[in-house]
Amino acid sequence: MDNRPIGVFDSGLGGLTAVRSLRQILPEENLIYFGDTARVPYGGRSRETLLRYARQDVRFLRTHDLKAILIACGTVSTTSLTTLQAENDLPIVGVVEPTCRRAAAMTKNKRVGLIATLASVRSGAYEACLARIAPEVQVFAKPCPLFVPLVENGRIHPGDIVIETVAREYLEPLLETGIDTLILGCTHYPLLSEIIGSICGPGVTLVSAGEESAFELKRLLKARELRADPRRAGTAEFCVSDRVEDFERIASLFLQEELRHGARRVDIEQY
Amino acid sequence: MDNRPIGVFDSGLGGLTAVRSLRQILPEENLIYFGDTARVPYGGRSRETLLRYARQDVRFLRTHDLKAILIACGTVSTTSLTTLQAENDLPIVGVVEPTCRRAAAMTKNKRVGLIATLASVRSGAYEACLARIAPEVQVFAKPCPLFVPLVENGRIHPGDIVIETVAREYLEPLLETGIDTLILGCTHYPLLSEIIGSICGPGVTLVSAGEESAFELKRLLKARELRADPRRAGTAEFCVSDRVEDFERIASLFLQEELRHGARRVDIEQY
Repeated sequence: MDNRPIGVFDSGLGGLTAVRSLRQILPEENLIYFGDTARVPYGGRSRETLLRYARQDVRFLRTHDLKAILIACGTVSTTSLTTLQAENDLPIVGVVEPTCRRAAAMTKNKRVGLIATLASVRSGAYEACLARIAPEVQVFAKPCPLFVPLVENGRIHPGDIVIETVAREYLEPLLETGIDTLILGCTHYPLLSEIIGSICGPGVTLVSAGEESAFELKRLLKARELRADPRRAGTAEFCVSDRVEDFERIASLFLQEELRHGARRVDIEQY
Repeated sequence: MDNRPIGVFDSGLGGLTAVRSLRQILPEENLIYFGDTARVPYGGRSRETLLRYARQDVRFLRTHDLKAILIACGTVSTTSLTTLQAENDLPIVGVVEPTCRRAAAMTKNKRVGLIATLASVRSGAYEACLARIAPEVQVFAKPCPLFVPLVENGRIHPGDIVIETVAREYLEPLLETGIDTLILGCTHYPLLSEIIGSICGPGVTLVSAGEESAFELKRLLKARELRADPRRAGTAEFCVSDRVEDFERIASLFLQEELRHGARRVDIEQY
């Protein structure tokens, strides 16, 4: 048994949906979350800048005695995961490969849809990963640039004409391609799964990025005998690099639970 | 006569609406625009960071032989204008004070509305400026966080249920306060003036931030005999700090004209 915490980081607060999955799947584990809210979004940055940011994020998290790290950021997962794994002597799980493995396992007609931010779609990361692990799968990608701001403004409720109109515009052309599986390739999107699911209908299986990473981490901790005492209740601690004032409102939205305490501000440039 | 160019900068591309106003109001002037798209938004940054960014923006622009600078960024205008003016031997015009002067001159019932980003509303910059120049004016502020992403995704057309629903939600509570003048306190918002105007009705005068700065600059150039030859046609040059690929699409939207050539990328951290 190993009761040391798991570190989780993302460019912003979207990765909190991965924290939510971790708390459901590994309720006995302690979690430390870092959201780089001062430098969000990572999407448009150069590879060098991304690696520098990711190294700082990891260095800060490792000021705690961690047993594993989950990278809840798609951009870092695809550009810097291998380097970070080589540089750090603890298990690090990304967000892209577990998701692609799940999608490849779920699709029957080998037609998989991908919705994500413009930067993630452009990076081609999910396509590249699927081409490697399941070359028979065809990927149909659709950037959904308004989903992140709409989610962050709380527009996640079925019946809201704004989010429903935007979601239908994004999804209907994608559904015409005949996909039977849809990757929600952005950590904000699980909050829209009810709306997305009702537009896609029962014939399309939704695969959420953060959730698959949480399952992957569970398997990995079990294999290495790093699981925490199952009788304990895990805690969660939250750190951000920008102002903490908005944290509680947005975090409650992402975690779908009331927070007991707020976030701590970290000067990430110092790491 | 002075045919040297005018520098304009903003944290992103919103300041292009000020370029549009400048091209209408001062068509003979050459313009050089810098949009700090790699570090947008400035809103949440500390004062020290903002001043550092603003100094870099000015230093880059001044690698050209400029006769004046227009700061199209509300955040920089309110936090760093005085310092930048003291450090530079050329006229620098901000975006907040000219707008407040205009609003104070237009309002009859002394009730002025302000719509802006959350960061701008929080800064209290427009309220502080109005309190100084027109203490009898009461300000009613409403943050409109979804306007920027909606505008950047081209949702500016009357009849679009998404922008119209969001705009009504933001504006109707503000209109209940009885304002007769509304400051569009964000450089993105002039693109929504048709939608905002039709919701507010003829009883509310709209005052656009970028436009008032352009008029202020015109007065200032005239007073100092710095106007360009009125028979010439001014040019415009565009620089950004992040990827240039999206520039043309978004810039055409903001400028409401087709661009003849794209933007140049600048490594702003070197300045």
